[in-house]
Amino acid sequence: MVFEIRYTDLAARIGRLSTPHGEIETPAFVPVVHPVRQTISPRFLKEVMGFSLVITNAYITLRHYGDDARKRGIHNIIGFDGAVMTDSGGYQVLEYGSVEVEPAAMAQFEKDIKSDIPIPLDKPTGYGLPYQQAKEYVRITLENCEQTLKVVGDTDAVWVGPVQGAEHFDLVEHSAKALDRMGFQFMALGSPVELMEAYEFAILARMIARAKKIIPTKPVHLFGAGHPLTMPLAIALGCDTFDSASYMLYAKDGRYMHANGTARLEELTYLPCQCPICSSHTLKELRSMPRDQRVIEVAKHNLHVLKTEVDMTKQAIMDGRLWEYVMQKARAHPKLMEAVQLLGNDGNRGEFNFIADGTPLFKDKAIFFFDPIDQQRPEAKRFRQAVSSFVTIKKKLVVFPEGEVHPFYATKGFKELAKKFPDAQLATYNPYLGIIPAEISDVFPASHNLTSRVERRIRDYQSFVESLQIFAAKFDEVTIVADEFMKQAVQEAGLKARIEDYSDHVIDRL
Amino acid sequence: MVFEIRYTDLAARIGRLSTPHGEIETPAFVPVVHPVRQTISPRFLKEVMGFSLVITNAYITLRHYGDDARKRGIHNIIGFDGAVMTDSGGYQVLEYGSVEVEPAAMAQFEKDIKSDIPIPLDKPTGYGLPYQQAKEYVRITLENCEQTLKVVGDTDAVWVGPVQGAEHFDLVEHSAKALDRMGFQFMALGSPVELMEAYEFAILARMIARAKKIIPTKPVHLFGAGHPLTMPLAIALGCDTFDSASYMLYAKDGRYMHANGTARLEELTYLPCQCPICSSHTLKELRSMPRDQRVIEVAKHNLHVLKTEVDMTKQAIMDGRLWEYVMQKARAHPKLMEAVQLLGNDGNRGEFNFIADGTPLFKDKAIFFFDPIDQQRPEAKRFRQAVSSFVTIKKKLVVFPEGEVHPFYATKGFKELAKKFPDAQLATYNPYLGIIPAEISDVFPASHNLTSRVERRIRDYQSFVESLQIFAAKFDEVTIVADEFMKQAVQEAGLKARIEDYSDHVIDRL
Repeated sequence: MVFEIRYTDLAARIGRLSTPHGEIETPAFVPVVHPVRQTISPRFLKEVMGFSLVITNAYITLRHYGDDARKRGIHNIIGFDGAVMTDSGGYQVLEYGSVEVEPAAMAQFEKDIKSDIPIPLDKPTGYGLPYQQAKEYVRITLENCEQTLKVVGDTDAVWVGPVQGAEHFDLVEHSAKALDRMGFQFMALGSPVELMEAYEFAILARMIARAKKIIPTKPVHLFGAGHPLTMPLAIALGCDTFDSASYMLYAKDGRYMHANGTARLEELTYLPCQCPICSSHTLKELRSMPRDQRVIEVAKHNLHVLKTEVDMTKQAIMDGRLWEYVMQKARAHPKLMEAVQLLGNDGNRGEFNFIADGTPLFKDKAIFFFDPIDQQRPEAKRFRQAVSSFVTIKKKLVVFPEGEVHPFYATKGFKELAKKFPDAQLATYNPYLGIIPAEISDVFPASHNLTSRVERRIRDYQSFVESLQIFAAKFDEVTIVADEFMKQAVQEAGLKARIEDYSDHVIDRL
Repeated sequence: MVFEIRYTDLAARIGRLSTPHGEIETPAFVPVVHPVRQTISPRFLKEVMGFSLVITNAYITLRHYGDDARKRGIHNIIGFDGAVMTDSGGYQVLEYGSVEVEPAAMAQFEKDIKSDIPIPLDKPTGYGLPYQQAKEYVRITLENCEQTLKVVGDTDAVWVGPVQGAEHFDLVEHSAKALDRMGFQFMALGSPVELMEAYEFAILARMIARAKKIIPTKPVHLFGAGHPLTMPLAIALGCDTFDSASYMLYAKDGRYMHANGTARLEELTYLPCQCPICSSHTLKELRSMPRDQRVIEVAKHNLHVLKTEVDMTKQAIMDGRLWEYVMQKARAHPKLMEAVQLLGNDGNRGEFNFIADGTPLFKDKAIFFFDPIDQQRPEAKRFRQAVSSFVTIKKKLVVFPEGEVHPFYATKGFKELAKKFPDAQLATYNPYLGIIPAEISDVFPASHNLTSRVERRIRDYQSFVESLQIFAAKFDEVTIVADEFMKQAVQEAGLKARIEDYSDHVIDRL
């Protein structure tokens, strides 16, 4: 199996996964297809919607088609010539408690039906399981996986290692480590469905983070997480594929997806969407359709929403704006906000520091700074880190507010300052980046950011105070031409400095 | 002219505007149609896209068709049987400096071609004009409007009063007052194009606010503001219609609109959209089309994006979530954030207090609280106001943290407290709503909100400290079962109270 990572931002990656039935570009939404009853044809999913990977259920396939399935193969059965992932009954275990099949027999069956991405028979921990029971489920899953590997043999198929443990994070780590050691090349994280139903996005985020610590580079599938609210965050945390039957289940329940969640058709006054379904029907038409037809149309609409969400997230990765996109998305639901806040502050556990690893050192586009949490984005942290180890032999520091023109050293004002203070280190500053020495004022993102001009209180910008303290400590004499924000910072930092009032200062805004 | 307001949220309204050629539901995007060269047919705009109002240029119509236009009428000329708004050369004035036509003659022409919503010949102030010159332009515009009204006579057409003044807000007020007095029933605000090109959304917002102070109920058009970034905010501030040629101008320039702005086709890696254009073409196909065809396809896509933006904003109004939507949208661009911040803090000028007027007293759906600025949303301010005038004869106050169950008075914990403190006023609290007396803990939005459980510092919640001070002052004795947030608040408020530690307290989380 080859998983080629092409671009990254935060822990997200644009990747290419090779399977016996073609390449899959990730991140990807993976529609769930029923092996027997298909209201939306897999052909439509591939040819009209462009999905190159679907997931179906090997257990139901076995029960319904028996050995005939081995002859026909899963691609023939569901009528899909792209890549097929097969779940093996784990979800049925979660729903109905037990499954009448042995792990080795199931593995042999998935091998025989030529699944591209088969999943061993696992025992999902769900959410809310007591620790000892969850531990036992993880043990059984790992045992099943070992039995599965004995059956697998030489194969092109991409066997998936199902990581269980849910909110018991040490079990997640243990599970991921064991599966990694067994040699699985593709991991799947279970079972966020229940976490999502409880809107426990923060626990979901921490669960992903703990698994990624163990398996930072291998591709990761997130079970049942195909939802417009969860995908951008899960992608930012390094998940690559997401299956869900929700597009159909919601449609059957009269629920219409949109960028910020779902709404019942009867709650809507408008169709706030221009997908081919919504641009060719009015809300009234949709409502008055016969139920069967309406379910299909709403399910198709839901698929369009899911596809758009993935494409918007992928474009955000390419634009280097995934942080902005995830922070914006967080305002869809207060519970999503709880999860997204962890990216900036996880209680100093450092569980989310890994998002820095995929964040490019340089970006083409200016990054946007909006809120205090943006101090914690990897680009800003990295810049402050670089400044803290900046070396100079100068003994005098002169700091001047940032202007509209970048970089600082190329401004007219800088040249006047340099004439006036020939022996001083000159610097400017930004609330998110801290002190910016003139010499590196063209280093990303010092000259590649857009910052709102809004009233800021220094108490929300502790990283700025620290940056000022650390940098000023390198000098014997500090002069600061200060705006209101900087005056507060000097006070907060307990800094001895000569302060000139910005508004009185002779040198105009740079 | 009838303008019927059906629903409101903030200063936004869902309205119905009657014209000789049908009713227009507002807010509405109004596509600009060229009277001579039409790359996208007005028939397509109406029948496929569903736009029931377009705007075209009477000045160009006069120059090109001359008196023949009076015989044919503007609807026949452009081939549109919906409502037609006509601009009368003001934009040409802005672009080329002068127009060879007199206001009265232009008014007669617009009357003769049977424009549904004609605009008198105005002299747009644009942005950046010195005060005296802007004042002169306003004077000329008002004089033109008076001359126009002499020509109008008895009419079904909805004549528009063009409010000029731009960043000179006293001129905006003066202009709006004069036009209101003249009897114009539909106002248009000029000319945000230049403000928008400079991303001066904050000035745009203040300009709208000043005009709305004078004309709170009449429908308001915002010239040239049809852009995904500006429409939600402008709608929230009470603007009803928005014209723009940007869908076509951007398309000609290879610019593709999306929810957060625009991107050049060559900057995109994906088409993050599922409109009929984007779901039937790949990015590669779009790029390799002949230019003329590509311009049409991208222009159609741009129209779909604009329509979606208006529909999403309208649905947000119906859901009572316009505040949430505008705050989320603000994270599209730091300059938009500057403008949106004014809704919560306009430097205590009170210019934006009017957004409370349209905010319903009760909403069906729980409102979401995310950020400190949400303390300033009208529902929260209104609730704190109600609590500050809450009257009780009790002398003891007992305050207990809010739990997951609402309302407070219906919880088991409340009943235990009531037994333990029979003579005390009981209350709970929320960071955004302040103190919540038990008796009104079912009043909107005390039991109808979702608040993120994130770490909060009291310094960002000054309204909470005030609420605590005002309410506690009504009592001789105060006992507070306090979580960390409340402990900070008591200290910040300088309050004398008996504090019990929340974590030690016998009564479980309610």
